[in-house]
Amino acid sequence: MESGPSGGSRPAEPGPRLRGLRGADAAASASSLSRFGAEAGCRAPAVAAVLPAGGSGERMGVPTPKQFCPILERPLISYTLQALERVSWIKDIIVAVTGENMETMKGIIQRYQHKRISLVEAGVTRHRSIFNGLKALAEDQPNCRLSKPEVVIIHDAVRPFVEEDVLLNVVTAAQEHGASGAIRPLVSTVISPSVDSCLDHSLERARYRASEMPQAFLFDVIYEAYQQCSDYDLEFGTECLHLALKYSHIKAKLVEGSPDLWKVTYKRDLYAAESIIKERISQQVCVVMDTKEDEEHVGRCLEEMLKTELNHIKVTSGQDLQQIIVEQCYNFVCMNVMTSDFEKTQRLLNMLEESNLSILYPVVVISVHFLDYESVPFGQKMEKVGKNVGKIVCSVD
Amino acid sequence: MESGPSGGSRPAEPGPRLRGLRGADAAASASSLSRFGAEAGCRAPAVAAVLPAGGSGERMGVPTPKQFCPILERPLISYTLQALERVSWIKDIIVAVTGENMETMKGIIQRYQHKRISLVEAGVTRHRSIFNGLKALAEDQPNCRLSKPEVVIIHDAVRPFVEEDVLLNVVTAAQEHGASGAIRPLVSTVISPSVDSCLDHSLERARYRASEMPQAFLFDVIYEAYQQCSDYDLEFGTECLHLALKYSHIKAKLVEGSPDLWKVTYKRDLYAAESIIKERISQQVCVVMDTKEDEEHVGRCLEEMLKTELNHIKVTSGQDLQQIIVEQCYNFVCMNVMTSDFEKTQRLLNMLEESNLSILYPVVVISVHFLDYESVPFGQKMEKVGKNVGKIVCSVD
Repeated sequence: MESGPSGGSRPAEPGPRLRGLRGADAAASASSLSRFGAEAGCRAPAVAAVLPAGGSGERMGVPTPKQFCPILERPLISYTLQALERVSWIKDIIVAVTGENMETMKGIIQRYQHKRISLVEAGVTRHRSIFNGLKALAEDQPNCRLSKPEVVIIHDAVRPFVEEDVLLNVVTAAQEHGASGAIRPLVSTVISPSVDSCLDHSLERARYRASEMPQAFLFDVIYEAYQQCSDYDLEFGTECLHLALKYSHIKAKLVEGSPDLWKVTYKRDLYAAESIIKERISQQVCVVMDTKEDEEHVGRCLEEMLKTELNHIKVTSGQDLQQIIVEQCYNFVCMNVMTSDFEKTQRLLNMLEESNLSILYPVVVISVHFLDYESVPFGQKMEKVGKNVGKIVCSVD
Repeated sequence: MESGPSGGSRPAEPGPRLRGLRGADAAASASSLSRFGAEAGCRAPAVAAVLPAGGSGERMGVPTPKQFCPILERPLISYTLQALERVSWIKDIIVAVTGENMETMKGIIQRYQHKRISLVEAGVTRHRSIFNGLKALAEDQPNCRLSKPEVVIIHDAVRPFVEEDVLLNVVTAAQEHGASGAIRPLVSTVISPSVDSCLDHSLERARYRASEMPQAFLFDVIYEAYQQCSDYDLEFGTECLHLALKYSHIKAKLVEGSPDLWKVTYKRDLYAAESIIKERISQQVCVVMDTKEDEEHVGRCLEEMLKTELNHIKVTSGQDLQQIIVEQCYNFVCMNVMTSDFEKTQRLLNMLEESNLSILYPVVVISVHFLDYESVPFGQKMEKVGKNVGKIVCSVD
């Protein structure tokens, strides 16, 4: 059984590069790199990613190219960049954008504090844009601060939910086979029409797959293929794996991807992406209690109530707040049971401000005061708090 | 350029069968039937539809089969049934459901007042379910109130946004060619894997199409194909057009469908469907004014303001309210400018209650009273009203 977008392992979901938290970042990086050794029995290669983002998005039916369409007010491409950025072993990310969108793209990088990004000019087709990205990575480019990677990932700007797992899988497979790409089962049967728009034949669905992204290649394999390929390929081709096969004689290893890898193509896909993102950020809440005592009693009680609506509930009396913020929790409930000062709340707000967390998603802080702790039955009060907290967290956008 | 789901012609969107409005229904029916003559130069055939709905929805990653998953609290299949029901020239709709879901399905039909539906037991595969539906329509079935149609539409329970236009197109093409199906361009390149999960070859994307639904067939063509086809076909086949070709030697006419025809497959598709439905029902608002005079002045002013947020605004002083309800407007603003009685509002509420409109979607009625008509500048007041109305209508679910 395939799991839906909310199931499965935790995705390499967009999240901010946190200021002043280099220790945590470095730790994440080390742990990811070591996975190459553990999982594939090979050393960690130098990896870069190329993201063609020159499309006009004409299938979307809206004037804005789809990679720049806003989701919760942030452009789609920013989510994809972050999904790649969070993977610390991707050293450089080359984005190919058209001249007319170059300033827009620079603005996005600045506003959402994206790092390790280099921009190149897009070509008139997807293949030409990718080729421009590869050229920028090739050693023989003058005045280029980039260095040639061993493996290059090619991904789409409009697939924001790419997970670290699948990136690791395609990179590892590319190291071994020269080329690799994510695939998915076909949703519809594929047919071949005759010239008069009648059915010529249909393909047996089980024998074919949809080629998705990300794909990864030994850099020399794909760069050589692009250098050799014809103008026809560059104009009308749609498949990098095909170029590696045709020109470098490499049979790409195919890796099963998750349903999340789908490409935002139509307006409905923007709706779906927005709902997935909202669901993800609203499913995690941190309950901050005044004291260790309250944490045990009131906090656990609230936790039980919230469990029916939310997936991840963390109750704390404050010691590990910094770590919880690093792990990108966007929803906080500050419970003031006996006191009505704002000490804990103020400390949380300071940490949040310092963390830059709100650049990327709305952060929700709910402050609860038990003014009538003595007079209203505890169970009744908690039920009310639980219901309202759940409602607020799930409705914010 | 392809238009997104909200563009293009008005879809045969789910809508209720209204009580006490047989006149309007009959008029719609006559106009649709006459389109056969006008558009295709042929007489209107007897048409039935078969809807296989026996799937387990395992790709969704949720325990409920996807056709029964709720969208705005109503099961997905109910939207699809209504899209078909609204097309008056479809005489019978046969739904194939598994024994264990038979009672659920009966409950849905009753609750949402679906008409012209017959239930048959689903088979273990999609093809077997369709075959069961066709058997129920064939003349030689004993004790069957259904009669054999000339043309049968096959559709999916999980494609709720099917438009009357595309249904007409496939039926007309089936009359002429024997078989017809909706197609869409491929979103991803299709590849063929080798046995060791490496790329064998990739297909040139432009030369292939995704086969979607609805499809239509001369009844005898598809029934004969199903009667002849092998157990292997019934178990592993995915394509009705293929059966018509293989066993009845009919090359189906392929008809370009809209992006709305996509199949709800993953959880993200439920999100997308919900957003599309919300957008559709919230984009239409009717402003009911007290008097003809207010309609000209205050009403038009509000219309201008709402235009920036909503697509369809109808201003009326009440004469055509019945017709507006028939056309399925779900949002009403009753403006009381000089008076503060509730006469118009009460009349509207009575009509809405009588119409059964709220069975299918939430109906929003906003009552606005100008208590300080004299004291606050008119422009300022209208701006405030416009902003709030837009906000309320768009946020209700």
